[in-house]
Amino acid sequence: MKLYDMAGPPSPRRVRIFLAEKGLELDREEINIREKAQFNPEFSSINPRLTIPALQLDSGVVLTESEAIQRYLEELYPDPPLFGDTPEERAIVTNRLRMIEVDGYMAVAEAVRNSIPNFENRALTGPRNFAQIEELGKRGIERIGYFFEDLDAILANSQYVAGDKYTVADVNALVAVDFAGMMKQAIPENCPNLKRWHDEVSARPSAKA
Amino acid sequence: MKLYDMAGPPSPRRVRIFLAEKGLELDREEINIREKAQFNPEFSSINPRLTIPALQLDSGVVLTESEAIQRYLEELYPDPPLFGDTPEERAIVTNRLRMIEVDGYMAVAEAVRNSIPNFENRALTGPRNFAQIEELGKRGIERIGYFFEDLDAILANSQYVAGDKYTVADVNALVAVDFAGMMKQAIPENCPNLKRWHDEVSARPSAKA
Repeated sequence: MKLYDMAGPPSPRRVRIFLAEKGLELDREEINIREKAQFNPEFSSINPRLTIPALQLDSGVVLTESEAIQRYLEELYPDPPLFGDTPEERAIVTNRLRMIEVDGYMAVAEAVRNSIPNFENRALTGPRNFAQIEELGKRGIERIGYFFEDLDAILANSQYVAGDKYTVADVNALVAVDFAGMMKQAIPENCPNLKRWHDEVSARPSAKA
Repeated sequence: MKLYDMAGPPSPRRVRIFLAEKGLELDREEINIREKAQFNPEFSSINPRLTIPALQLDSGVVLTESEAIQRYLEELYPDPPLFGDTPEERAIVTNRLRMIEVDGYMAVAEAVRNSIPNFENRALTGPRNFAQIEELGKRGIERIGYFFEDLDAILANSQYVAGDKYTVADVNALVAVDFAGMMKQAIPENCPNLKRWHDEVSARPSAKA
């Protein structure tokens, strides 16, 4: 299988940190989205959604969603488990993943893509163009603050985002929190638990992936 | 375990159809969100996100996301499998689920919550209020059309949304397509494959759940 990847943007980093935690190396090809390489026919025929990461399996099937890639790799390489050890742990991880995705990752994306001039007409990922909506950019910024607060409340009661073990919820939350840096939104003073957690997970070697 | 549920809104229907396909019955309690019962302290202490469906496990853990509930039930009651039979099938299902969620379900929610007066200041689910954004309501309508087109293209090549077996991707896609009815968006004439699929999955007894 082959991973279409690029250092810098947040989504592919979720897969790279996940791979580093598993101790895995995959065949990779860089798709430089800063140079709009995702629009080249060579890549757009592989992933018509024009997004990275994308994982092409040996069968030819292409997975275009980070979480689908992560779950597939978890099945193939179960050690160490990153989605939890029991049905209940896995359910808690899945529940948190959606909160991180919708309230965190998508809130930052809402802010970034609706306010940074470079994303003009690219307010959503994918093959179609959407105009920026100024109010939506502002709403995104507001939501980032709530995401930090909510994560801080979770981390007041547990070491990691989905309990007392490091999981894929920590991988994706770290990437979402760091992604907020693109909007110059740093962890606020009133979120000490989030700060403690962020220092800890950022110190893992995988965070450099 | 106990399911907090209500007939009518789209999200809980995803869980009910899933249960019907599994032949399962759960203990249920109705939370009448039309009468704002989600704000009652009795429920808000169980699910501070104020959303349904919510599944309370015997351990006290509460799952608040439809997909987390569906995956948990799949683990406990694997027959018939609704997430696929092999790692690759499951990866394809997961990949489709996210497309259905983001491009379908959330597109309809964007339209509904930003344009129907009843959702004034409730442009996002959850405990916090967000003002409606008129342009976002219009964008949602536009995206529903693209969702129909994209699903039609998928269904031109396969019987079901994630291949040749009925899966949870069909459950959630059916609910997303029917949810579009709230914005008076019906399957257009130029989407015959989507129409064929919609007729077929709607005829299953589970669709009435």
